[in-house]
Amino acid sequence: MEAGFTLCIVGLGLMGGSFALALRQASRTAPESHRLALPTRIVAVGRNAAVLSAAQAAGAVDAWTHDLAVGVAEAEVVILATPIRTTLRLMPEVGRHARTGALILDLGSTKAEVCAAMAALPEGLDPVGGHPMCGKEVSGFAAAEATLFAGRPFVLCPLPRTTPTGLERALALVRATGARPLILDPVAHDWGVAAISHLPYMAAVALVNAVDVAGDPLPWSLASSGFRDTTRVAASDVEMMLDILLTNRAAVLEWLQRFSDQMVALHGALAENDEARLRALLSTARQRRSGLQWL
Amino acid sequence: MEAGFTLCIVGLGLMGGSFALALRQASRTAPESHRLALPTRIVAVGRNAAVLSAAQAAGAVDAWTHDLAVGVAEAEVVILATPIRTTLRLMPEVGRHARTGALILDLGSTKAEVCAAMAALPEGLDPVGGHPMCGKEVSGFAAAEATLFAGRPFVLCPLPRTTPTGLERALALVRATGARPLILDPVAHDWGVAAISHLPYMAAVALVNAVDVAGDPLPWSLASSGFRDTTRVAASDVEMMLDILLTNRAAVLEWLQRFSDQMVALHGALAENDEARLRALLSTARQRRSGLQWL
Repeated sequence: MEAGFTLCIVGLGLMGGSFALALRQASRTAPESHRLALPTRIVAVGRNAAVLSAAQAAGAVDAWTHDLAVGVAEAEVVILATPIRTTLRLMPEVGRHARTGALILDLGSTKAEVCAAMAALPEGLDPVGGHPMCGKEVSGFAAAEATLFAGRPFVLCPLPRTTPTGLERALALVRATGARPLILDPVAHDWGVAAISHLPYMAAVALVNAVDVAGDPLPWSLASSGFRDTTRVAASDVEMMLDILLTNRAAVLEWLQRFSDQMVALHGALAENDEARLRALLSTARQRRSGLQWL
Repeated sequence: MEAGFTLCIVGLGLMGGSFALALRQASRTAPESHRLALPTRIVAVGRNAAVLSAAQAAGAVDAWTHDLAVGVAEAEVVILATPIRTTLRLMPEVGRHARTGALILDLGSTKAEVCAAMAALPEGLDPVGGHPMCGKEVSGFAAAEATLFAGRPFVLCPLPRTTPTGLERALALVRATGARPLILDPVAHDWGVAAISHLPYMAAVALVNAVDVAGDPLPWSLASSGFRDTTRVAASDVEMMLDILLTNRAAVLEWLQRFSDQMVALHGALAENDEARLRALLSTARQRRSGLQWL
Protein backbone atom coordinates (compact mmCIF):
# COMPACT_ATOMS: atom_id res chain seq x y z
CA MET A 1 0.00 0.00 0.00
CA GLU A 2 1.31 3.45 -0.87
CA ALA A 3 2.47 5.73 1.93
CA GLY A 4 1.13 9.24 2.14
CA PHE A 5 -2.16 9.12 0.29
CA THR A 6 -5.09 11.55 0.14
CA LEU A 7 -8.63 10.60 1.15
CA CYS A 8 -11.60 12.66 -0.03
CA ILE A 9 -14.87 12.59 1.94
CA VAL A 10 -17.90 13.75 -0.02
CA GLY A 11 -20.49 14.96 2.51
CA LEU A 12 -19.23 15.97 5.96
CA GLY A 13 -22.26 15.14 8.09
CA LEU A 14 -22.57 12.75 11.02
CA MET A 15 -21.19 9.77 9.08
CA GLY A 16 -18.55 11.49 6.93
CA GLY A 17 -17.43 13.68 9.81
CA SER A 18 -17.16 10.75 12.20
CA PHE A 19 -15.21 8.78 9.57
CA ALA A 20 -12.70 11.66 9.27
CA LEU A 21 -12.38 12.01 13.05
CA ALA A 22 -11.94 8.25 13.50
CA LEU A 23 -9.14 8.13 10.92
CA ARG A 24 -7.45 11.15 12.54
CA GLN A 25 -7.56 9.45 15.89
CA ALA A 26 -6.19 6.24 14.38
CA SER A 27 -3.31 8.19 12.83
CA ARG A 28 -2.38 9.54 16.25
CA THR A 29 -2.55 6.21 18.07
CA ALA A 30 -1.78 3.46 15.52
CA PRO A 31 1.69 1.83 15.54
CA GLU A 32 3.97 2.99 12.69
CA SER A 33 3.42 -0.24 10.72
CA HIS A 34 -0.36 0.32 10.57
CA ARG A 35 -0.19 3.95 9.49
CA LEU A 36 0.47 3.02 5.88
CA ALA A 37 -3.21 2.14 5.59
CA LEU A 38 -4.21 5.60 6.83
CA PRO A 39 -4.47 8.81 4.79
CA THR A 40 -1.91 11.53 5.43
CA ARG A 41 -4.27 14.10 3.97
CA ILE A 42 -8.10 14.34 4.24
CA VAL A 43 -10.07 16.63 1.92
CA ALA A 44 -13.79 17.28 2.33
CA VAL A 45 -16.31 18.11 -0.39
CA GLY A 46 -19.45 19.80 0.88
CA ARG A 47 -21.90 22.66 0.53
CA ASN A 48 -21.89 24.45 3.87
CA ALA A 49 -18.75 26.64 4.10
CA ALA A 50 -19.24 27.35 7.81
CA VAL A 51 -19.38 23.64 8.65
CA LEU A 52 -16.42 22.81 6.40
CA SER A 53 -14.31 25.63 7.86
CA ALA A 54 -15.13 24.55 11.38
CA ALA A 55 -14.15 20.97 10.54
CA GLN A 56 -10.86 22.19 9.12
CA ALA A 57 -10.20 24.41 12.15
CA ALA A 58 -10.89 21.40 14.40
CA GLY A 59 -8.30 19.39 12.46
CA ALA A 60 -10.82 16.86 11.15
CA VAL A 61 -9.86 17.65 7.56
CA ASP A 62 -6.84 19.35 5.97
CA ALA A 63 -8.75 21.16 3.24
CA TRP A 64 -12.21 21.50 1.75
CA THR A 65 -13.89 22.48 -1.48
CA HIS A 66 -17.39 22.92 -2.87
CA ASP A 67 -16.18 21.39 -6.13
CA LEU A 68 -16.63 17.62 -6.32
CA ALA A 69 -14.30 17.37 -9.35
CA VAL A 70 -11.46 19.13 -7.53
CA GLY A 71 -11.78 17.14 -4.32
CA VAL A 72 -12.11 13.77 -6.01
CA ALA A 73 -9.29 14.37 -8.50
CA GLU A 74 -6.59 14.60 -5.87
CA ALA A 75 -7.60 11.52 -3.86
CA GLU A 76 -6.50 7.88 -3.87
CA VAL A 77 -9.56 7.04 -1.76
CA VAL A 78 -13.03 8.60 -2.18
CA ILE A 79 -15.62 8.17 0.60
CA LEU A 80 -19.20 8.94 -0.48
CA ALA A 81 -20.99 10.00 2.70
CA THR A 82 -23.98 11.80 1.17
CA PRO A 83 -27.65 10.70 1.39
CA ILE A 84 -28.15 7.58 -0.75
CA ARG A 85 -29.95 9.16 -3.68
CA THR A 86 -27.38 11.98 -3.74
CA THR A 87 -24.68 9.32 -3.88
CA LEU A 88 -26.48 7.66 -6.81
CA ARG A 89 -26.73 11.02 -8.59
CA LEU A 90 -23.08 11.94 -7.97
CA MET A 91 -21.66 8.53 -8.96
CA PRO A 92 -21.16 9.31 -12.70
CA GLU A 93 -19.42 12.60 -11.86
CA VAL A 94 -17.18 10.83 -9.33
CA GLY A 95 -16.38 8.36 -12.11
CA ARG A 96 -15.39 11.14 -14.51
CA HIS A 97 -12.98 12.80 -12.08
CA ALA A 98 -11.56 10.03 -9.91
CA ARG A 99 -7.92 8.98 -10.38
CA THR A 100 -7.15 5.65 -12.00
CA GLY A 101 -6.93 2.99 -9.31
CA ALA A 102 -8.87 5.03 -6.73
CA LEU A 103 -10.88 3.16 -4.08
CA ILE A 104 -14.49 4.35 -4.07
CA LEU A 105 -16.34 3.49 -0.82
CA ASP A 106 -19.79 4.72 0.26
CA LEU A 107 -21.45 4.82 3.70
CA GLY A 108 -25.12 4.44 2.68
CA SER A 109 -27.74 2.33 4.48
CA THR A 110 -28.91 0.39 1.40
CA LYS A 111 -26.49 -1.31 -0.92
CA ALA A 112 -28.06 -2.90 -4.03
CA GLU A 113 -28.71 0.35 -5.95
CA VAL A 114 -25.43 1.93 -4.87
CA CYS A 115 -23.46 -1.18 -5.90
CA ALA A 116 -25.32 -1.21 -9.24
CA ALA A 117 -24.25 2.42 -9.79
CA MET A 118 -20.70 1.49 -8.76
CA ALA A 119 -20.71 -1.34 -11.30
CA ALA A 120 -21.20 1.28 -14.03
CA LEU A 121 -18.13 3.32 -12.97
CA PRO A 122 -15.36 3.59 -15.57
CA GLU A 123 -12.81 0.79 -15.69
CA GLY A 124 -9.75 1.29 -13.53
CA LEU A 125 -11.67 2.49 -10.50
CA ASP A 126 -12.00 0.18 -7.50
CA PRO A 127 -15.47 0.44 -5.91
CA VAL A 128 -16.74 -1.21 -2.67
CA GLY A 129 -20.16 -0.67 -1.08
CA GLY A 130 -20.16 0.12 2.65
CA HIS A 131 -22.68 0.43 5.47
CA PRO A 132 -21.50 1.34 8.96
CA MET A 133 -24.29 0.01 11.19
CA CYS A 134 -24.50 2.79 13.72
CA GLY A 135 -26.15 6.13 14.05
CA LYS A 136 -27.49 8.74 16.39
CA GLU A 137 -30.79 10.56 16.72
CA VAL A 138 -29.02 13.74 15.64
CA SER A 139 -27.29 14.52 12.36
CA GLY A 140 -24.67 16.89 10.98
CA PHE A 141 -20.93 17.36 11.56
CA ALA A 142 -21.60 18.92 14.97
CA ALA A 143 -22.76 15.47 16.15
CA ALA A 144 -19.79 13.61 14.62
CA GLU A 145 -17.43 11.73 16.91
CA ALA A 146 -14.29 9.65 16.46
CA THR A 147 -15.80 6.69 18.33
CA LEU A 148 -19.09 6.43 16.38
CA PHE A 149 -18.00 3.24 14.58
CA ALA A 150 -16.11 1.64 17.47
CA GLY A 151 -17.22 -1.95 18.03
CA ARG A 152 -20.06 -1.63 15.50
CA PRO A 153 -20.54 -3.86 12.46
CA PHE A 154 -19.46 -2.21 9.19
CA VAL A 155 -20.86 -4.07 6.20
CA LEU A 156 -18.68 -4.17 3.09
CA CYS A 157 -20.12 -5.27 -0.26
CA PRO A 158 -17.33 -5.97 -2.74
CA LEU A 159 -18.39 -6.02 -6.41
CA PRO A 160 -17.26 -8.68 -8.87
CA ARG A 161 -14.90 -6.01 -10.24
CA THR A 162 -13.46 -5.05 -6.84
CA THR A 163 -9.75 -5.94 -6.74
CA PRO A 164 -8.30 -7.85 -3.77
CA THR A 165 -6.16 -4.77 -3.09
CA GLY A 166 -9.25 -2.53 -3.08
CA LEU A 167 -11.07 -4.78 -0.63
CA GLU A 168 -7.98 -4.94 1.59
CA ARG A 169 -7.69 -1.15 1.62
CA ALA A 170 -11.37 -0.84 2.52
CA LEU A 171 -10.99 -3.43 5.30
CA ALA A 172 -7.96 -1.60 6.70
CA LEU A 173 -9.85 1.73 6.79
CA VAL A 174 -12.87 0.10 8.43
CA ARG A 175 -10.67 -1.55 11.05
CA ALA A 176 -8.91 1.77 11.66
CA THR A 177 -12.27 3.31 12.66
CA GLY A 178 -12.65 0.58 15.29
CA ALA A 179 -15.57 -1.07 13.46
CA ARG A 180 -15.99 -4.82 12.83
CA PRO A 181 -16.06 -5.49 9.06
CA LEU A 182 -18.77 -7.85 7.80
CA ILE A 183 -18.66 -8.87 4.13
CA LEU A 184 -22.09 -9.34 2.55
CA ASP A 185 -23.77 -9.54 -0.82
CA PRO A 186 -25.63 -6.23 -1.43
CA VAL A 187 -29.02 -7.88 -2.08
CA ALA A 188 -28.70 -10.08 1.01
CA HIS A 189 -27.75 -6.98 3.02
CA ASP A 190 -30.78 -5.03 1.81
CA TRP A 191 -33.09 -7.97 2.56
CA GLY A 192 -31.71 -8.30 6.07
CA VAL A 193 -31.85 -4.62 6.99
CA ALA A 194 -35.37 -4.34 5.52
CA ALA A 195 -36.45 -6.91 8.15
CA ILE A 196 -34.68 -5.52 11.21
CA SER A 197 -34.52 -1.80 10.45
CA HIS A 198 -36.83 -0.53 7.68
CA LEU A 199 -39.88 -2.63 8.65
CA PRO A 200 -39.63 -1.69 12.37
CA TYR A 201 -39.39 1.96 11.27
CA MET A 202 -42.60 1.61 9.23
CA ALA A 203 -44.35 -0.07 12.18
CA ALA A 204 -43.23 2.72 14.52
CA VAL A 205 -44.55 5.35 12.08
CA ALA A 206 -47.90 3.54 11.81
CA LEU A 207 -48.18 3.26 15.63
CA VAL A 208 -47.70 7.01 16.03
CA ASN A 209 -49.98 7.87 13.10
CA ALA A 210 -52.77 5.54 14.27
CA VAL A 211 -52.93 7.43 17.57
CA ASP A 212 -52.51 10.76 15.78
CA VAL A 213 -55.44 10.36 13.36
CA ALA A 214 -57.71 9.25 16.22
CA GLY A 215 -57.49 12.88 17.38
CA ASP A 216 -58.01 11.90 21.03
CA PRO A 217 -55.60 13.39 23.60
CA LEU A 218 -56.22 10.60 26.15
CA PRO A 219 -53.89 7.91 24.70
CA TRP A 220 -50.98 10.39 24.49
CA SER A 221 -51.48 11.30 28.14
CA LEU A 222 -50.98 7.62 29.07
CA ALA A 223 -47.96 6.95 26.82
CA SER A 224 -45.13 5.48 28.86
CA SER A 225 -41.83 3.60 28.41
CA GLY A 226 -43.34 0.84 26.23
CA PHE A 227 -44.69 3.31 23.67
CA ARG A 228 -41.55 5.43 23.94
CA ASP A 229 -39.23 2.56 23.03
CA THR A 230 -41.48 0.93 20.44
CA THR A 231 -41.83 4.22 18.52
CA ARG A 232 -38.37 5.75 19.08
CA VAL A 233 -37.25 5.26 15.47
CA ALA A 234 -40.35 7.11 14.17
CA ALA A 235 -38.44 10.30 15.06
CA SER A 236 -35.71 9.45 12.49
CA ASP A 237 -34.77 12.02 9.86
CA VAL A 238 -37.46 11.83 7.17
CA GLU A 239 -35.28 12.61 4.14
CA MET A 240 -32.75 9.97 5.19
CA MET A 241 -35.52 7.40 5.63
CA LEU A 242 -37.11 8.31 2.27
CA ASP A 243 -33.76 7.65 0.60
CA ILE A 244 -33.49 4.31 2.36
CA LEU A 245 -37.06 3.17 1.68
CA LEU A 246 -37.14 4.29 -1.95
CA THR A 247 -33.84 2.51 -2.71
CA ASN A 248 -35.00 -0.70 -1.01
CA ARG A 249 -38.63 -0.88 -2.13
CA ALA A 250 -38.90 -4.53 -3.15
CA ALA A 251 -37.43 -5.88 0.10
CA VAL A 252 -39.41 -3.48 2.31
CA LEU A 253 -42.68 -4.27 0.50
CA GLU A 254 -42.04 -7.98 0.93
CA TRP A 255 -41.39 -7.59 4.67
CA LEU A 256 -44.46 -5.36 5.06
CA GLN A 257 -46.49 -8.25 3.67
CA ARG A 258 -44.84 -10.79 5.99
CA PHE A 259 -45.47 -8.47 8.95
CA SER A 260 -49.10 -8.00 7.91
CA ASP A 261 -49.55 -11.79 7.84
CA GLN A 262 -48.36 -11.93 11.46
CA MET A 263 -50.68 -9.09 12.51
CA VAL A 264 -53.60 -10.87 10.84
CA ALA A 265 -52.74 -14.04 12.77
CA LEU A 266 -52.69 -12.11 16.07
CA HIS A 267 -55.93 -10.31 15.19
CA GLY A 268 -57.59 -13.62 14.29
CA ALA A 269 -56.55 -15.38 17.50
CA LEU A 270 -57.77 -12.46 19.63
CA ALA A 271 -61.01 -11.96 17.64
CA GLU A 272 -61.83 -15.66 17.98
CA ASN A 273 -60.85 -15.67 21.66
CA ASP A 274 -58.47 -18.51 20.79
CA GLU A 275 -56.30 -18.41 23.90
CA ALA A 276 -54.12 -21.38 22.96
CA ARG A 277 -53.27 -19.95 19.54
CA LEU A 278 -52.64 -16.49 20.98
CA ARG A 279 -50.41 -17.96 23.69
CA ALA A 280 -48.40 -19.85 21.06
CA LEU A 281 -47.83 -16.67 18.99
CA LEU A 282 -46.85 -14.58 22.01
CA SER A 283 -44.60 -17.33 23.38
CA THR A 284 -42.69 -17.68 20.13
CA ALA A 285 -41.97 -13.95 20.13
CA ARG A 286 -41.03 -13.87 23.80
CA GLN A 287 -38.61 -16.77 23.44
CA ARG A 288 -36.98 -15.35 20.31
CA ARG A 289 -36.73 -11.82 21.67
CA SER A 290 -35.37 -12.89 25.06
CA GLY A 291 -32.66 -14.95 23.42
CA LEU A 292 -31.34 -12.22 21.12
CA GLN A 293 -27.76 -11.08 21.32
CA TRP A 294 -27.19 -7.44 20.38
CA LEU A 295 -24.59 -6.18 17.95
CA MET B 1 -59.93 7.94 58.87
CA GLU B 2 -59.42 5.26 61.50
CA ALA B 3 -56.00 4.89 63.08
CA GLY B 4 -54.33 1.49 63.16
CA PHE B 5 -55.92 -0.43 60.30
CA THR B 6 -54.96 -3.67 58.55
CA LEU B 7 -54.27 -3.91 54.82
CA CYS B 8 -54.39 -7.25 53.04
CA ILE B 9 -52.48 -7.74 49.79
CA VAL B 10 -53.67 -10.66 47.66
CA GLY B 11 -50.76 -11.72 45.44
CA LEU B 12 -47.26 -10.77 46.58
CA GLY B 13 -45.50 -10.47 43.23
CA LEU B 14 -43.74 -7.48 41.69
CA MET B 15 -46.77 -5.17 42.07
CA GLY B 16 -48.18 -6.39 45.37
CA GLY B 17 -44.70 -6.68 46.89
CA SER B 18 -43.70 -3.20 45.75
CA PHE B 19 -46.97 -1.80 47.11
CA ALA B 20 -46.22 -3.32 50.52
CA LEU B 21 -42.63 -2.05 50.50
CA ALA B 22 -43.72 1.45 49.42
CA LEU B 23 -46.27 1.66 52.27
CA ARG B 24 -43.66 0.43 54.76
CA GLN B 25 -41.25 3.09 53.60
CA ALA B 26 -43.97 5.75 53.82
CA SER B 27 -44.74 4.65 57.39
CA ARG B 28 -41.11 5.21 58.34
CA THR B 29 -40.77 8.61 56.71
CA ALA B 30 -44.22 10.26 56.69
CA PRO B 31 -45.02 12.98 59.25
CA GLU B 32 -47.26 11.84 62.12
CA SER B 33 -50.32 13.58 60.63
CA HIS B 34 -50.06 11.55 57.40
CA ARG B 35 -49.64 8.16 59.06
CA LEU B 36 -53.35 7.85 59.75
CA ALA B 37 -53.78 7.00 56.06
CA LEU B 38 -51.24 4.18 56.30
CA PRO B 39 -51.82 0.62 57.54
CA THR B 40 -50.27 -0.39 60.84
CA ARG B 41 -50.48 -4.04 59.82
CA ILE B 42 -49.98 -5.63 56.39
CA VAL B 43 -51.11 -9.20 55.73
CA ALA B 44 -50.33 -11.08 52.52
CA VAL B 45 -52.36 -13.79 50.85
CA GLY B 46 -50.37 -15.97 48.47
CA ARG B 47 -49.47 -19.48 47.35
CA ASN B 48 -45.70 -19.69 47.65
CA ALA B 49 -44.74 -20.18 51.33
CA ALA B 50 -41.05 -19.56 50.68
CA VAL B 51 -41.74 -16.20 49.04
CA LEU B 52 -44.26 -15.19 51.72
CA SER B 53 -41.88 -16.15 54.55
CA ALA B 54 -39.05 -14.22 52.95
CA ALA B 55 -41.30 -11.16 52.59
CA GLN B 56 -42.25 -11.43 56.24
CA ALA B 57 -38.63 -11.86 57.32
CA ALA B 58 -37.73 -8.76 55.29
CA GLY B 59 -40.42 -6.80 57.12
CA ALA B 60 -42.52 -6.21 54.00
CA VAL B 61 -45.53 -7.84 55.64
CA ASP B 62 -46.46 -8.66 59.23
CA ALA B 63 -48.16 -11.96 58.50
CA TRP B 64 -49.25 -14.19 55.66
CA THR B 65 -51.73 -16.92 54.87
CA HIS B 66 -52.68 -19.20 52.00
CA ASP B 67 -56.33 -18.67 52.92
CA LEU B 68 -58.00 -15.78 51.10
CA ALA B 69 -60.95 -15.79 53.49
CA VAL B 70 -58.72 -15.44 56.56
CA GLY B 71 -56.55 -12.67 55.10
CA VAL B 72 -59.43 -10.64 53.73
CA ALA B 73 -61.61 -11.00 56.85
CA GLU B 74 -59.21 -9.10 59.09
CA ALA B 75 -58.55 -6.16 56.73
CA GLU B 76 -60.05 -2.70 56.35
CA VAL B 77 -58.31 -2.42 52.97
CA VAL B 78 -57.91 -5.25 50.43
CA ILE B 79 -55.42 -4.86 47.58
CA LEU B 80 -55.95 -7.33 44.71
CA ALA B 81 -52.53 -7.72 43.08
CA THR B 82 -53.09 -11.00 41.20
CA PRO B 83 -53.14 -11.44 37.40
CA ILE B 84 -56.33 -9.86 36.00
CA ARG B 85 -58.31 -13.02 35.30
CA THR B 86 -57.36 -14.37 38.74
CA THR B 87 -58.67 -11.13 40.24
CA LEU B 88 -61.94 -11.58 38.31
CA ARG B 89 -62.22 -15.16 39.58
CA LEU B 90 -61.45 -14.24 43.20
CA MET B 91 -63.79 -11.22 43.33
CA PRO B 92 -66.92 -13.08 44.54
CA GLU B 93 -64.93 -14.80 47.30
CA VAL B 94 -63.42 -11.47 48.36
CA GLY B 95 -66.97 -10.14 48.49
CA ARG B 96 -68.09 -12.99 50.74
CA HIS B 97 -65.33 -12.50 53.30
CA ALA B 98 -64.51 -8.80 53.31
CA ARG B 99 -65.52 -6.65 56.28
CA THR B 100 -68.35 -4.17 55.90
CA GLY B 101 -66.95 -0.84 54.74
CA ALA B 102 -63.69 -2.34 53.43
CA LEU B 103 -61.93 -0.59 50.60
CA ILE B 104 -61.28 -3.02 47.71
CA LEU B 105 -58.56 -1.79 45.29
CA ASP B 106 -56.93 -3.78 42.47
CA LEU B 107 -53.67 -3.22 40.57
CA GLY B 108 -54.56 -4.73 37.18
CA SER B 109 -53.63 -3.32 33.76
CA THR B 110 -57.18 -3.33 32.32
CA LYS B 111 -60.09 -1.82 34.17
CA ALA B 112 -63.49 -2.31 32.50
CA GLU B 113 -63.94 -6.02 33.35
CA VAL B 114 -62.47 -5.62 36.85
CA CYS B 115 -64.74 -2.64 37.59
CA ALA B 116 -67.74 -4.62 36.28
CA ALA B 117 -66.84 -7.44 38.70
CA MET B 118 -66.44 -4.88 41.49
CA ALA B 119 -69.89 -3.47 40.71
CA ALA B 120 -71.33 -6.91 41.58
CA LEU B 121 -69.69 -6.98 45.05
CA PRO B 122 -72.08 -7.08 48.03
CA GLU B 123 -73.43 -3.76 49.31
CA GLY B 124 -71.38 -2.14 52.03
CA LEU B 125 -68.01 -2.78 50.36
CA ASP B 126 -66.19 0.16 48.82
CA PRO B 127 -64.46 -0.83 45.55
CA VAL B 128 -62.09 1.28 43.36
CA GLY B 129 -60.27 0.09 40.24
CA GLY B 130 -56.53 0.84 40.08
CA HIS B 131 -53.71 0.65 37.54
CA PRO B 132 -50.21 1.69 38.56
CA MET B 133 -48.55 2.55 35.23
CA CYS B 134 -45.13 1.12 35.79
CA GLY B 135 -43.43 -2.21 35.52
CA LYS B 136 -40.19 -4.02 35.00
CA GLU B 137 -39.02 -6.75 32.64
CA VAL B 138 -38.83 -9.10 35.60
CA SER B 139 -41.60 -10.30 37.87
CA GLY B 140 -42.07 -11.78 41.34
CA PHE B 141 -41.49 -10.48 44.87
CA ALA B 142 -37.72 -10.73 44.44
CA ALA B 143 -37.95 -7.88 41.92
CA ALA B 144 -40.23 -5.73 44.11
CA GLU B 145 -38.99 -2.34 45.29
CA ALA B 146 -40.35 0.47 47.43
CA THR B 147 -39.76 3.06 44.69
CA LEU B 148 -41.49 1.22 41.81
CA PHE B 149 -44.44 3.64 41.81
CA ALA B 150 -42.52 6.82 42.60
CA GLY B 151 -43.36 9.59 40.15
CA ARG B 152 -45.45 7.25 37.96
CA PRO B 153 -49.11 7.76 37.06
CA PHE B 154 -51.49 5.55 39.07
CA VAL B 155 -54.91 5.41 37.43
CA LEU B 156 -57.90 5.17 39.77
CA CYS B 157 -61.34 4.25 38.42
CA PRO B 158 -64.02 4.99 41.02
CA LEU B 159 -67.35 3.23 40.46
CA PRO B 160 -70.73 4.97 40.78
CA ARG B 161 -71.02 3.14 44.13
CA THR B 162 -67.58 4.20 45.40
CA THR B 163 -68.01 6.47 48.46
CA PRO B 164 -66.12 9.78 48.70
CA THR B 165 -64.36 8.31 51.74
CA GLY B 166 -63.33 5.22 49.79
CA LEU B 167 -61.89 7.30 46.95
CA GLU B 168 -60.05 9.50 49.45
CA ARG B 169 -58.53 6.47 51.16
CA ALA B 170 -57.42 5.08 47.81
CA LEU B 171 -55.92 8.46 46.83
CA ALA B 172 -54.03 8.66 50.13
CA LEU B 173 -52.56 5.16 49.67
CA VAL B 174 -51.55 5.95 46.07
CA ARG B 175 -49.90 9.21 47.14
CA ALA B 176 -48.11 7.37 49.94
CA THR B 177 -46.43 5.12 47.34
CA GLY B 178 -45.08 8.24 45.62
CA ALA B 179 -47.30 7.78 42.55
CA ARG B 180 -49.34 10.49 40.83
CA PRO B 181 -53.06 9.59 40.96
CA LEU B 182 -55.04 10.01 37.72
CA ILE B 183 -58.81 9.51 37.87
CA LEU B 184 -60.28 7.94 34.73
CA ASP B 185 -63.37 6.15 33.52
CA PRO B 186 -62.55 2.42 33.14
CA VAL B 187 -63.64 2.20 29.48
CA ALA B 188 -61.68 5.35 28.57
CA HIS B 189 -58.65 3.90 30.38
CA ASP B 190 -58.86 0.62 28.49
CA TRP B 191 -59.22 2.44 25.17
CA GLY B 192 -56.17 4.61 25.87
CA VAL B 193 -53.87 1.83 27.06
CA ALA B 194 -54.94 -0.36 24.12
CA ALA B 195 -53.51 2.36 21.84
CA ILE B 196 -50.24 3.06 23.63
CA SER B 197 -49.46 -0.27 25.28
CA HIS B 198 -51.40 -3.30 23.98
CA LEU B 199 -51.18 -2.38 20.28
CA PRO B 200 -47.42 -1.64 20.43
CA TYR B 201 -46.99 -5.01 22.16
CA MET B 202 -48.84 -6.77 19.32
CA ALA B 203 -46.72 -4.93 16.74
CA ALA B 204 -43.52 -5.93 18.56
CA VAL B 205 -44.64 -9.58 18.64
CA ALA B 206 -45.45 -9.50 14.91
CA LEU B 207 -42.04 -7.92 14.10
CA VAL B 208 -40.21 -10.71 15.92
CA ASN B 209 -42.45 -13.45 14.51
CA ALA B 210 -42.15 -12.15 10.93
CA VAL B 211 -38.37 -12.54 11.11
CA ASP B 212 -38.73 -15.83 12.98
CA VAL B 213 -40.97 -17.58 10.44
CA ALA B 214 -38.67 -16.46 7.60
CA GLY B 215 -36.18 -18.95 9.05
CA ASP B 216 -33.21 -16.96 7.75
CA PRO B 217 -30.36 -16.28 10.23
CA LEU B 218 -29.10 -13.21 8.31
CA PRO B 219 -31.60 -10.59 9.60
CA TRP B 220 -30.96 -11.60 13.22
CA SER B 221 -27.23 -11.16 12.69
CA LEU B 222 -27.85 -7.53 11.64
CA ALA B 223 -30.32 -6.64 14.41
CA SER B 224 -29.19 -3.52 16.22
CA SER B 225 -30.49 -0.80 18.56
CA GLY B 226 -33.51 0.06 16.38
CA PHE B 227 -34.82 -3.50 16.39
CA ARG B 228 -33.88 -3.93 20.04
CA ASP B 229 -35.97 -0.96 21.18
CA THR B 230 -38.88 -1.50 18.78
CA THR B 231 -39.32 -5.10 19.94
CA ARG B 232 -38.37 -4.79 23.63
CA VAL B 233 -41.93 -5.31 24.88
CA ALA B 234 -42.24 -8.59 22.91
CA ALA B 235 -40.26 -10.15 25.79
CA SER B 236 -43.07 -9.35 28.25
CA ASP B 237 -44.53 -12.12 30.39
CA VAL B 238 -46.94 -14.08 28.17
CA GLU B 239 -49.52 -15.01 30.83
CA MET B 240 -49.72 -11.40 32.01
CA MET B 241 -50.20 -10.19 28.44
CA LEU B 242 -52.83 -12.85 27.72
CA ASP B 243 -54.80 -11.61 30.74
CA ILE B 244 -54.51 -8.04 29.50
CA LEU B 245 -55.42 -8.77 25.87
CA LEU B 246 -58.31 -11.13 26.66
CA THR B 247 -59.86 -8.63 29.08
CA ASN B 248 -59.51 -5.76 26.60
CA ARG B 249 -60.44 -7.46 23.34
CA ALA B 250 -62.80 -4.90 21.82
CA ALA B 251 -60.44 -1.96 22.28
CA VAL B 252 -57.36 -3.91 21.12
CA LEU B 253 -59.17 -5.24 18.02
CA GLU B 254 -60.28 -1.70 17.14
CA TRP B 255 -56.71 -0.36 17.46
CA LEU B 256 -55.33 -3.29 15.45
CA GLN B 257 -57.66 -2.21 12.65
CA ARG B 258 -56.61 1.45 12.91
CA PHE B 259 -52.95 0.40 12.87
CA SER B 260 -53.54 -1.84 9.86
CA ASP B 261 -55.08 1.14 8.01
CA GLN B 262 -51.87 3.09 8.62
CA MET B 263 -49.66 0.21 7.46
CA VAL B 264 -51.77 -0.10 4.30
CA ALA B 265 -51.31 3.64 3.65
CA LEU B 266 -47.52 3.30 4.05
CA HIS B 267 -47.44 0.18 1.86
CA GLY B 268 -49.50 1.95 -0.82
CA ALA B 269 -47.30 5.05 -0.90
CA LEU B 270 -44.15 2.93 -1.17
CA ALA B 271 -45.61 0.47 -3.70
CA GLU B 272 -46.73 3.37 -5.91
CA ASN B 273 -43.41 5.18 -5.43
CA ASP B 274 -45.44 8.16 -4.24
CA GLU B 275 -42.65 10.10 -2.57
CA ALA B 276 -44.81 13.11 -1.60
CA ARG B 277 -47.41 10.95 0.14
CA LEU B 278 -44.75 8.84 1.85
CA ARG B 279 -42.94 12.01 3.02
CA ALA B 280 -46.20 13.36 4.46
CA LEU B 281 -46.89 10.15 6.42
CA LEU B 282 -43.32 9.93 7.77
CA SER B 283 -43.26 13.65 8.63
CA THR B 284 -46.49 13.46 10.63
CA ALA B 285 -45.04 10.62 12.70
CA ARG B 286 -41.69 12.34 13.17
CA GLN B 287 -43.28 15.57 14.31
CA ARG B 288 -45.67 13.85 16.72
CA ARG B 289 -43.03 11.52 18.12
CA SER B 290 -40.41 14.26 18.57
CA GLY B 291 -42.89 16.43 20.46
CA LEU B 292 -43.97 13.78 22.98
CA GLN B 293 -43.50 14.32 26.68
CA TRP B 294 -42.96 11.16 28.69
CA LEU B 295 -44.82 10.20 31.82
